[in-house]
Order: sequence, then structure tokens, then C-alpha cells
Amino acid sequence: MTPELHNSRFLKAARCEPTDCTPVWIMRQAGRYLPEYMAVRSKVTFLELCKRPELAAEVTLTAREVLGVDAAILFADLLPILQPMGFDLEYQKGEGPVIHNPITSANEVGRVRPIENVSDLGYVFEAVQLIRRDLPGNIPLLGFAGAPFTLASYAIEGGGSKNYVRTKSMMFNDPGAWTELMNKLVDSLSDYLRAQIEAGCQAVQIFDSWAGCLSPDDYDRYVQPHTKRLIESLPSETPVINFLTGNPALIPSQAAAGGRVIGIDWRVRLDEAWTTVGYERAIQGNMDPVSLYCELPVLKQRTQALLNQAEGRPGHIFNLGHGVHPDMKPENVKALVNYVHELSAK
Amino acid sequence: MTPELHNSRFLKAARCEPTDCTPVWIMRQAGRYLPEYMAVRSKVTFLELCKRPELAAEVTLTAREVLGVDAAILFADLLPILQPMGFDLEYQKGEGPVIHNPITSANEVGRVRPIENVSDLGYVFEAVQLIRRDLPGNIPLLGFAGAPFTLASYAIEGGGSKNYVRTKSMMFNDPGAWTELMNKLVDSLSDYLRAQIEAGCQAVQIFDSWAGCLSPDDYDRYVQPHTKRLIESLPSETPVINFLTGNPALIPSQAAAGGRVIGIDWRVRLDEAWTTVGYERAIQGNMDPVSLYCELPVLKQRTQALLNQAEGRPGHIFNLGHGVHPDMKPENVKALVNYVHELSAK
Repeated sequence: MTPELHNSRFLKAARCEPTDCTPVWIMRQAGRYLPEYMAVRSKVTFLELCKRPELAAEVTLTAREVLGVDAAILFADLLPILQPMGFDLEYQKGEGPVIHNPITSANEVGRVRPIENVSDLGYVFEAVQLIRRDLPGNIPLLGFAGAPFTLASYAIEGGGSKNYVRTKSMMFNDPGAWTELMNKLVDSLSDYLRAQIEAGCQAVQIFDSWAGCLSPDDYDRYVQPHTKRLIESLPSETPVINFLTGNPALIPSQAAAGGRVIGIDWRVRLDEAWTTVGYERAIQGNMDPVSLYCELPVLKQRTQALLNQAEGRPGHIFNLGHGVHPDMKPENVKALVNYVHELSAK
Repeated sequence: MTPELHNSRFLKAARCEPTDCTPVWIMRQAGRYLPEYMAVRSKVTFLELCKRPELAAEVTLTAREVLGVDAAILFADLLPILQPMGFDLEYQKGEGPVIHNPITSANEVGRVRPIENVSDLGYVFEAVQLIRRDLPGNIPLLGFAGAPFTLASYAIEGGGSKNYVRTKSMMFNDPGAWTELMNKLVDSLSDYLRAQIEAGCQAVQIFDSWAGCLSPDDYDRYVQPHTKRLIESLPSETPVINFLTGNPALIPSQAAAGGRVIGIDWRVRLDEAWTTVGYERAIQGNMDPVSLYCELPVLKQRTQALLNQAEGRPGHIFNLGHGVHPDMKPENVKALVNYVHELSAK
């Protein structure tokens, strides 16, 4: 890694070192709210966009540049890793992802194949190389993957879910099958994330987007050991952002699973979450994405209020608590990025 | 109130007095999972069932008796109170509730009418009288209403919502209009709940089913004062169950809003929540409703694990953390009620 990259705002903050101002990036920053993204996306399907490295690189780089954020995040999706594991994945118009052959009973877990050859996902690593080549030298590139629980929920529910009845039922009634599935996912995710890092990512984020539906005891028993094993399997010099949304009571367990940076949502005050995590680690978040619908003076006040919670302490990476909404005005996202930089400048 | 009712398991627990075993009831206990309910429901629409006191009473009483729970809860819905306030409410098949004339901008709040004559909702109070007449003398009847935030979200979104963008946008951008709407709701809800109590309810539950989407600061600023005013307006001798789901980080603020009993969901350990609330108040909850899909020995273990968190302390009212699912087996719900009584017997 170049010294310039090593001393970038984002990576310094991830190490809890002081920075000239608070680094910021936006979950789903390369997304449908951005006309530059839609121009590319209109020509191909969502899955094609994921699988064509030159297009994935283009939307990644453009979003980073248009917003002026302090990190780029690889354009990709949580679910394509399930394809080489034997799942039939489709993105249906307006319906979100569908898996046509979900796991419907414990005895089907045997058919799930851990990834043997990570080059099955070679298009992702090619995109990483293209992005890294064209990114400014002081901007880190983040890779990412779904956390094992979130991926298991898709594999079992066959798509999104309101109550995760099938996922939890397998967990509660067939803990052996559940562990087998989680082990296969962790092995595959570990290979996948390590290959992203080798291809040129400076940090990776693990998205446990749906773990908030769990009680602390169930998270500790059925999920946390697997997320922990995944994080421990990654190179220790690469910062891992361990992101979980939907349940602030899980933060102690989430933090205990590891990660140089703990990503949180807006359901908890950032200062309280950071006290729980401990100041020796960085914290990422945690503006309510709906704040971006505010008139700009209100948005600015809300940005200041959140920065106040961080008290200028080194190790805050500003972000939303979840992805930016598809109908957001790009101007408001740009304004947010500017407010963060301006209001936090030392 | 008769001494028998005053000394019922439920009301003793609500006062944090010791009981022979832990009282239990189930949110949405008179619901679609129950064949006895479906037999009545199949003859009328959902709204007719709410508005025909003899039918509402029948499903309330039958569910109480079939399950052997320690309280009956009035069969009604959160939303009909919005009709006399000027909203055009419909329950569409399989779609949930729809309000055809939601509030789409701040300047429409003026058209919302606080309830002037609570007898517009007379069918509810008639049902209360019929139920109370036929309930066993040691079983309290619970009334209920939506919390002001949850009702405001329906009035603004026009139905359910994923992200509450319109609701929060009004809150953030037009706090004056927001306060006006909340005031009208609190005034109406206060009259409505007091009339339920006068008609024969021994306790009432306030459902803040959707407040979990809020950050603690936004809850404190835009919601909590209104819920507090509602609770304070009710007769102090009637226990109020203040129920909120979806965000354990709100529990301190929820508890500060008042309520003899604090109702919580499964996202937090009951023992931790109770420590936060303080042992001078009762706690209600908090099994994950998905636990009811477990094989019975697993369900029994999970029931024991939850009772262990209460440590036999007086003031625990057992419940799920949210309503029972419509596809649940009635046998499992009955088994849960029996486990609670059996495992907690002194």
C-alpha cells in the first residue's frame, strides 16, 4: 500500500488516528438515486451490471467522484456468491431478488456447495482491479459481502422476509443443519473476501442487514460464532467494518464478533454505541436515511447533531445507518457530504 | 371492582405483587390462527366484526377460554378511531388497512377532527360491556388503542410503511404541523381509552407498534411528550401497559413516558430491560413469536429460559414480543400458556 493510501482519511479513522475532518461515505452510494448510475443501468439488467467489470467499475468510480466521498465501495450485490453454491438467483423487476430453489428443509443443507474455486466470482475481482487502477491515490476501495446470517436468510426464505420464520425455525429446531449451512457460508465468504482484498480492496464491510430480527441470546448462540470465525479468517492488517442493523441490543455481541470498525444504524445514539464498543475501535454511522429528505438547513442541523455525539474523537466514519433510498435527490446527498467535511474540519 | 378481580393474577402482577404463577396472555390471541375465530370471521368483513359488539364479544371470550390465558383483550383494531376523525378507512383483502385520504402535506393537518363525541365509537364500549358481563370474575378485560405515533404514521402513510418517509419528513420539516396532529390524536385517544375503562376494562394497552423506526433523539423530541400526556390523562388507578416494539434503545424513553407495565419485544433480554425500567414497575413480554413454530420440547425450553430471566420476581406478565402469526397452530399457543403456568408455579 502506498503511504498516501495508508494515510487516507478513511484508513486513518479506521485505525482511530486523528484526521483533518471526519471521513464520510454513503451506503449504496452507487445506486438508483444517481442519474449517472441510471444511465449505465438502463442498458443492462442488474445482474449483468454486477457481472460486467467495466460497467461495475464505471458506476463505482462515478459515484465516488460525483459525491466527493472519502471511500469508494465496489459495486456488487450480496447474493451472487450464492450462485456457485448451487442457488438459482434471479432479480425480478420491482420484486427484488428471488432464489428459485431455496433450502426448504434441514436435510437439503447437504446440497449446498461451499465455493471451491473462487474464480467463479472472477468478475468481482476484475472489477476491483479496474476500480483500483482508476481511483485517486488517496481514496481506499472497500470490498464487501453479506454476513453469514443474512445470506442464510436469503438461502432459506428464497428472498426478502418479514419475520424470518423459516430461517429461525431451522435454527431453533435443527441446530445441526443450521451449523452446517453457516459453516459452508463462512468458508465461502472467507475465500471471497480474501480474494477481494488480494485484488486491491483496502478494507471490507460485512453486512448483517437482517440480524436485527434476532434476540440477543439467539444471536449469541446461532450467529455470532460464525461471524467471528469469518472476521478472524481475514488478514489482520485489513480493516473489517462489521455492520449490523435493526437491533441496538445486539451491539455488545456484534462488537465481540470483531471488526476494526463497528457499523451501526440510527436506532441508537452514536455516543452510547461507541461507549459500548469501546474507543479503541472505530465506529461507522449512523444518520437515519430519512434525514436526507429534510430541507437543507434541517439536514445541516441534523449533521451537526450527529457530529456532536462523536465529540471530535478520532475514529468516527460518517455514514447513514442503512442504504440511501432510491428516490433521494442527489443534491441532498452531495450536500450531506459537504456538511460533514465542513462542520468537522479541524 | 370486585376483590376477586382486584386480586386476579394479572392485576396483582401489574402492581408487582406476588402471584401463584406468572400470568400470561398473547397479543392477537383472538386472531386468524384460531378456528373458533375464523368461524365467526368468515361470515362478516373485518370491519363488521369490529363494529358488531356481539360478534366482537364472542371472539374475545372464546379465545380467552380456549387458551386459558389470564386476561381477555377486547377484539378491536387500532384504526377505526380514525374514521370519526375524518379518515376514509378500508381493509382490503390480503392488503391490510388502507386510508384513502391520508394527510399528504402539513397544511392538511387542519382538516383532521379531534373526536368530539366518543359515542361515535359506541360499538367498542358496547362490546366491552358484553365481554365484561360474560367473563369469569377473576379475569380482567384489557382495552387498547394505538399510540399517537403509530396512528399518525397510518394517517400520513395511508397504510403500512417500510421506512416511514412521509411521517418522518413531516416530523422533521414541519414540527408545528406534527405537534398539531399529535395533539389531536392524544385528545381523541384519551377520550377513547377513558370510555373503554368506564365501560368495564380493568387495564389498557397502548400499542406503539412502529415507533421502533425512530432514533432515540427523535423519539424523545417528537413522540415521547405526546405518549406521556396520553398516559397521564388516564385514571391513575387503571394500569396502563405501554408497549413499544422494534428498538430496545428506546426503552429508557418509553419507560419515562409512563405506564404501570412496560411491554417489550424479544430484541432485548427481559432481565436487561427490567433493570432499565426499574423493578418498581411490571414488565410484559417478550418471547419471539417465531418460537411458537418450535417443536414442543424446544418451545418448553425457550419458555423456561425466558422465565429464568424474570427470576421469579413479582411483576412479570408473560406475552410474546408481538402478535401471534396467523398461520400458527392453536395447539402450540395452548401449550405455551400451559408451560408458563406449569413452569412458574410456586
